[in-house]
Amino acid sequence: MAHTDPSPVSFETSPDQYRHWKLQIDGAVATLSMDVREDAGLSPDYRLKLNSYDLGVDIELADAVQRLRFEHPEVHAVVIASAKERIFCAGANIMMLRASTHAWKVNFCKFTNETRLAIEDASQHSGLKFLAALNGICAGGGYELALACDEIVLVDDGNSAVSLPEAPLLGVLPGTGGLTRVVDKRHVRRDLADYFSTLVEGVKGKRAVEWRLVDAVYPTSQFKDAIQKHARTLAAPSDRPAGGPGITLRPLNPTVTESAITYSAVSVTFNRHKRTAELTVHAPSGPQPSTPDDILNAGDQFWALRAFRELDDALLRLRLNEPELGTIIIRTDGEIDNVLAIDRTLAAHQSHWLVREIVHFMKRTLKRLDLTSRSLFAFIESRSAFGGSLFELALAADRSYMFHDDDEKNVIALSAMNGGLLPMSNGLSRLQVRFLADPEKPASLVAHDGPFNAADAAEAGLVTFAPDEIDWDDEVRLAVEARAAFSPDALTGLEANLRFAGPETMETKIFGRLTAWQNWIFQRPNAVGEKGALKVYGQQGRPEFDWKRT
Amino acid sequence: MAHTDPSPVSFETSPDQYRHWKLQIDGAVATLSMDVREDAGLSPDYRLKLNSYDLGVDIELADAVQRLRFEHPEVHAVVIASAKERIFCAGANIMMLRASTHAWKVNFCKFTNETRLAIEDASQHSGLKFLAALNGICAGGGYELALACDEIVLVDDGNSAVSLPEAPLLGVLPGTGGLTRVVDKRHVRRDLADYFSTLVEGVKGKRAVEWRLVDAVYPTSQFKDAIQKHARTLAAPSDRPAGGPGITLRPLNPTVTESAITYSAVSVTFNRHKRTAELTVHAPSGPQPSTPDDILNAGDQFWALRAFRELDDALLRLRLNEPELGTIIIRTDGEIDNVLAIDRTLAAHQSHWLVREIVHFMKRTLKRLDLTSRSLFAFIESRSAFGGSLFELALAADRSYMFHDDDEKNVIALSAMNGGLLPMSNGLSRLQVRFLADPEKPASLVAHDGPFNAADAAEAGLVTFAPDEIDWDDEVRLAVEARAAFSPDALTGLEANLRFAGPETMETKIFGRLTAWQNWIFQRPNAVGEKGALKVYGQQGRPEFDWKRT
Repeated sequence: MAHTDPSPVSFETSPDQYRHWKLQIDGAVATLSMDVREDAGLSPDYRLKLNSYDLGVDIELADAVQRLRFEHPEVHAVVIASAKERIFCAGANIMMLRASTHAWKVNFCKFTNETRLAIEDASQHSGLKFLAALNGICAGGGYELALACDEIVLVDDGNSAVSLPEAPLLGVLPGTGGLTRVVDKRHVRRDLADYFSTLVEGVKGKRAVEWRLVDAVYPTSQFKDAIQKHARTLAAPSDRPAGGPGITLRPLNPTVTESAITYSAVSVTFNRHKRTAELTVHAPSGPQPSTPDDILNAGDQFWALRAFRELDDALLRLRLNEPELGTIIIRTDGEIDNVLAIDRTLAAHQSHWLVREIVHFMKRTLKRLDLTSRSLFAFIESRSAFGGSLFELALAADRSYMFHDDDEKNVIALSAMNGGLLPMSNGLSRLQVRFLADPEKPASLVAHDGPFNAADAAEAGLVTFAPDEIDWDDEVRLAVEARAAFSPDALTGLEANLRFAGPETMETKIFGRLTAWQNWIFQRPNAVGEKGALKVYGQQGRPEFDWKRT
Repeated sequence: MAHTDPSPVSFETSPDQYRHWKLQIDGAVATLSMDVREDAGLSPDYRLKLNSYDLGVDIELADAVQRLRFEHPEVHAVVIASAKERIFCAGANIMMLRASTHAWKVNFCKFTNETRLAIEDASQHSGLKFLAALNGICAGGGYELALACDEIVLVDDGNSAVSLPEAPLLGVLPGTGGLTRVVDKRHVRRDLADYFSTLVEGVKGKRAVEWRLVDAVYPTSQFKDAIQKHARTLAAPSDRPAGGPGITLRPLNPTVTESAITYSAVSVTFNRHKRTAELTVHAPSGPQPSTPDDILNAGDQFWALRAFRELDDALLRLRLNEPELGTIIIRTDGEIDNVLAIDRTLAAHQSHWLVREIVHFMKRTLKRLDLTSRSLFAFIESRSAFGGSLFELALAADRSYMFHDDDEKNVIALSAMNGGLLPMSNGLSRLQVRFLADPEKPASLVAHDGPFNAADAAEAGLVTFAPDEIDWDDEVRLAVEARAAFSPDALTGLEANLRFAGPETMETKIFGRLTAWQNWIFQRPNAVGEKGALKVYGQQGRPEFDWKRT
């Protein structure tokens, strides 16, 4: 089968457009039911049988989780269920995986991992708990989705089981966090996890509870009531508002052309010849909301939410639709003081539910940037607005170049947002990761009064290089040209290792260890060769392996 | 060029056989000088120019580090130097990498990583410090070796630099710990590390010190004296003995046939049809040394040292020479009480230098087992000797099967060695990793009085399965057969994720993150395709890349 990735992909959707999920809200408990339309995959090359999913299904899931956070503060628990009888979810669609390019498989897994981590982020930080209601078959990516929930309840009907059959059936890994969550989140004993991960039929009933694979099982007759009871119990301690209203996340409606994507606060232009994308975030102008009520009134037009939603969407489009643009040059422009004012408002009102949602969304977007396998160069030029939360873009970059102007008007500035409110996947702020050699430094820099000019920023280690007018043009041009000439794969590996200095967490293990091994396997003839397991699954004949262990 | 891995490889050597290193001892300071013989590579297909290295060079380095620990307790610091003018080390030999199979490259990197970690282990636990004396070119793997040392001193001659040119020159990573150590050990700022890792010419002089890439630079005229001074300073605080004698590590001299490797306390038999290796460790018989003096007298014949040296050698041979034997079945036999008695002696005398060396060597060997990408099944049968340190073999296994005999004479037992003296790469004991769900359990199990029969061991979660006489034969046979049928690559990925539950350390990051990405890159056409960077380096023409980022 030819490799035919659907492209371009749009990541915007809304409940009235969902093809695969149904969202029902009943007081504090929402039910998000998977009901995948077989004929509505992103590509016509496969059918999404048995609630199997492709990227389009996961885009809707990600959208639903996001909307529940912003649009329905009265929801305190979400039941992830299935609308199909005796089937929860059969996992990622195998025909889709088989028909995809390597890059597509990798991006698909990355996005689905981010979606599952967004579920866990909502649980950990936002008082929104998740319950997986497994009414039947729950295999592979279906179980990985369940693992992302706070609780897993399985029907005990003598048949329904949870399973991770990827290794025995397909010769690949449960790569959407499955292996990591089994041992590192649910603390399943490693030898039982090994056995479980080689069992096509999975584990059911009491054994699934004893092995910590699920939290509870109920006979069919009690299943529905038990789910409601578990969901109400999960919802009860939430600190989210008892009632609405939330704010509405309206479509971003960017203008997309062959050479640019233009939003209200973000613009991206492509230089296909240089293989670069130039991404600019525009600071807001005029007076900004300064109280939670102002922010509620501004809703999705509040700059911090709007700009980061646009940034998030732009990153996803770049990842999937523009794979050859290997370097993203990040700029900002506008009034740096407006950014800092917004940061002060956000930091002062963190306990308000909507402010909290906005800050955590900014955090998740910046994590998406950290995890984007493109070279990131920040160019800090005159009239830029690299202050506080926008300076995180420069801290996320692999390098930053700051124009050293003669009159020292080009400045950057820090805010409370750089002091730990926007942590990386490893749990540290970007300043902490930057200054592992000097753990006291981040706090003293955040406490610094006023902006840093180029000389001060370079001296403080906040930027990589600060060329002056004589050198600037040549230096940044050569840096971009040199970067574009390197092996794209070597850069992906280099960046994945250098960006995440410091401790590892379950989240970084998923992206750094599990994903890296899965990508290796996705590339191997034993999976994707003509006789590889992923290629021959469901067809005549058995896979043929090169038995050498590596 | 055809792929022609040298095979079989022997991992035994000794200073009088070294071709590439010279060991000189001057009181408390030893100097280990790299002087690679161009024409003495493991294969005639390449020449080891400019102190570049292949596996054979690294086997000698590993041997030298090991012998310094056991044979020369009076040595407290080691200068890693070069015997060649203006060249420290040009890194791994590129012609060798180009001519190697994927599996060879992966095994080569794994072994060299283990060697560098053994250097750090000696520094951290054994009072033996290392100084890298960089007298000239120090590139790639050469710098990675320097990074493993406690201090790096570079000559300041206007020319000599440290560099990691793998990404720009070869399209691969500095995969022998380089990237991880730069940011996680030396805490080089991540943006400077990014820049440094793309510079073919590297960084020299004061900038190398400012960026934390080296600890000091000295002009040529002062270099030799400075090295001696730094080495004496490193040696001074050591708690190793002021004088010898050490013990001699004599050759293991196994009997190697087409179907078996037989040592004194370890035997391995191959079943090429089933693709299994059956590895048995024999407990000692008769009275055992019970004091440090007895152990000194027994020397390399003391069972704990002898058996683990043999185990270590067997694992290395299996890795390199028997790549198709995908499952290692681990057994023990003999007097379990003798193992437990030795464990008591080791635990009681940990502060004695030789006991310390033996315990840390046992630990490193068990880490080598954890990092061996073969499925590990422990079979605990009648007359087995899975007690204490030997029970770690069962804990390291992906699964354990314990024969549930009717008269309950088949037992396992724990000792103080299971309580933290033999930690994994992630810093936890194997019991701690096993019982992440119940952090109190490991200590209570170690405190348990007496052995565990099969029912008790299964109940305590110490073994995976405990089939009785009716089920045993079928159950273990089917388990081995099923394992042998799975994709070898999927198993490698599965095991690499499940074995290392819990926290990550610099060491696990090197093997789990850096190595996984490097293996992915080693497999990609952009590195190893006909026009890949690794293939065309040093030849006519430039690499041609698929520019899509993944």
